[in-house]
Amino acid sequence: MKSRLNEYVKPWVNDIEAYIPGKTIEGYVKLASNENNYGPSPRVMDAIEKAKSVLHIYPHKDDDVREKIAGYCNTKAENIILGNGSDELLDLILKAFKGPCIGLNPSYSWYKIAAGILGEEYLEVNLNDDFTLSSEQFIDKSKRANILFLCNPNNPTGTVIPEDKLREILDENKITVIDEAYYEFYGKSAVPLLKKYDNLIVLRTFAKAFALAGLRIGYGIANSNIIDLLYKVKMPFTTNSVAQEAAISALDDLRYTESRVNKIIKDREILFNKLKQKFRAFRSHANFVLIDTTPIKSKEFYEWFLERGIIIRNLGKFNGFRGEYCRISVGTSDENRAFIRALEEL
Amino acid sequence: MKSRLNEYVKPWVNDIEAYIPGKTIEGYVKLASNENNYGPSPRVMDAIEKAKSVLHIYPHKDDDVREKIAGYCNTKAENIILGNGSDELLDLILKAFKGPCIGLNPSYSWYKIAAGILGEEYLEVNLNDDFTLSSEQFIDKSKRANILFLCNPNNPTGTVIPEDKLREILDENKITVIDEAYYEFYGKSAVPLLKKYDNLIVLRTFAKAFALAGLRIGYGIANSNIIDLLYKVKMPFTTNSVAQEAAISALDDLRYTESRVNKIIKDREILFNKLKQKFRAFRSHANFVLIDTTPIKSKEFYEWFLERGIIIRNLGKFNGFRGEYCRISVGTSDENRAFIRALEEL
Repeated sequence: MKSRLNEYVKPWVNDIEAYIPGKTIEGYVKLASNENNYGPSPRVMDAIEKAKSVLHIYPHKDDDVREKIAGYCNTKAENIILGNGSDELLDLILKAFKGPCIGLNPSYSWYKIAAGILGEEYLEVNLNDDFTLSSEQFIDKSKRANILFLCNPNNPTGTVIPEDKLREILDENKITVIDEAYYEFYGKSAVPLLKKYDNLIVLRTFAKAFALAGLRIGYGIANSNIIDLLYKVKMPFTTNSVAQEAAISALDDLRYTESRVNKIIKDREILFNKLKQKFRAFRSHANFVLIDTTPIKSKEFYEWFLERGIIIRNLGKFNGFRGEYCRISVGTSDENRAFIRALEEL
Repeated sequence: MKSRLNEYVKPWVNDIEAYIPGKTIEGYVKLASNENNYGPSPRVMDAIEKAKSVLHIYPHKDDDVREKIAGYCNTKAENIILGNGSDELLDLILKAFKGPCIGLNPSYSWYKIAAGILGEEYLEVNLNDDFTLSSEQFIDKSKRANILFLCNPNNPTGTVIPEDKLREILDENKITVIDEAYYEFYGKSAVPLLKKYDNLIVLRTFAKAFALAGLRIGYGIANSNIIDLLYKVKMPFTTNSVAQEAAISALDDLRYTESRVNKIIKDREILFNKLKQKFRAFRSHANFVLIDTTPIKSKEFYEWFLERGIIIRNLGKFNGFRGEYCRISVGTSDENRAFIRALEEL
């Protein structure tokens, strides 16, 4: 059938780029996927105990979790949609709305891949050399697009788009997705803009500050018309019972997460200051720091740390930019110190 | 923006039917979603303990789980793809391959909805009056389709398609999906046919016999060319860490699942014999029994049990069929007895 298989394949599928996830090696310090290495609140562990008795039934706490998240976001449950990580919400947005799409370069690579999977055109606007955004240029090019993907703070640069620029972009009245995966490390959100803009979709996750990457739960916040539409294209039961219980408990213990987030922010500044003594480092508003490893090759930089038991992310070249890049996630204070020791030997 | 929102919506999205899941009410006996009410193996609980220490990192055991499942299916890891339930695999198949699609009526309703979400045409072939399949009729109509969805044993009828008919259908050389969600209750599988047919995709799940519906993990088995294609259109990290550990442990304790499956099969026969004394009941090869509630309305039948603390599934009328239908999942022996007591009072 090999020859016929190709006949059945959607024509754009062959062009889809592969997503390259961060490596996990047992026993290594992992600073490659912007995880929170302190782990979740102890209350999450109790929640998991609770979930054990309902493993055999389909997840059924969507409404409770939406209600709980609505409280955290100061909005209503009807404005919240749950996803199997916020990645699922990108898929739902692309299923509900027509392309073309537009995003930033560099940015989280999954927007482009997700669009490609559904055969949607994806335009890109290069950030400035310091990774700030020229909103005029973005608005100009986005006239051709229907769906706009912004990541704020932006992954992998750590840079942010100020609110006045976000408003300018939102005024264009396109479906505007603002991915706030790193919100808790930044503190500023586009959520209050939902009062004015019903073309806005904010995405959040429990994978970063709340340290639940392994459980896969994210959410979207938007006007209830958009939420209803996204639920129309959503499979039932995409967030599992353990994640649902864990998310509720994590939000019951915000102080725990806040204290860890504050530690990570302090350590990020220490890391940034150390890195910028040797390299072009970019001020970050998230839980990672991006550097241009020049004059060292980024692969060599990456391998230096790998040989010392530390996994960072080698990003190589960015299309249209000079230099070569690595991204270092902020780990625990101990892990950070280990990274800095290895950096000082470099 | 309300008026403009509609401009951006993909035209077919408004036509998508809603999926109606089984109800869960705390304290009620739930015989509505074909779950295994005995719950999973105690070893699964140990596995969850293990997963607690890695909640903060992205799931990273895909390869181990694929290897383990390959052992269970007597195939290779390269022939296995994991999903967030087998529902995700339906989405991936529809993303990778061109429609139109074809399926049976009645059958698992998600095939049609999933196709509709991606704007793919979905044809249907009515089963015979006794819910067996006329394969000639199916093959004839499927000439117009590229993707064929079969559910074997079929949900909600419990009927099966014999292997010779499956071979006839597979000989047509279309992308043929055989959903074996209820395989463990039937015992016969299309997996050995993979040696001959590289157009075959078998779907399985841990939600039914393995009692892990809450964790969301399913898998597909196919030729490695198809598996590679499906991975191209798949988001990373769709099965969570707890599900991955649980699946491995469940397969380490097959005897536990087998003993519960055998009990469920025995109880299904008791249930079937009781039901057919009063109603047109259909012989089932899965963990549920379908009945035509005539002369009672299916809604009244459903409510009789609901008033007695038992939730079954009211399916109402099937398009093109006489009668009205309810589906009763086989619960634990105690739950079954409670159902039969209520049935005898009816």
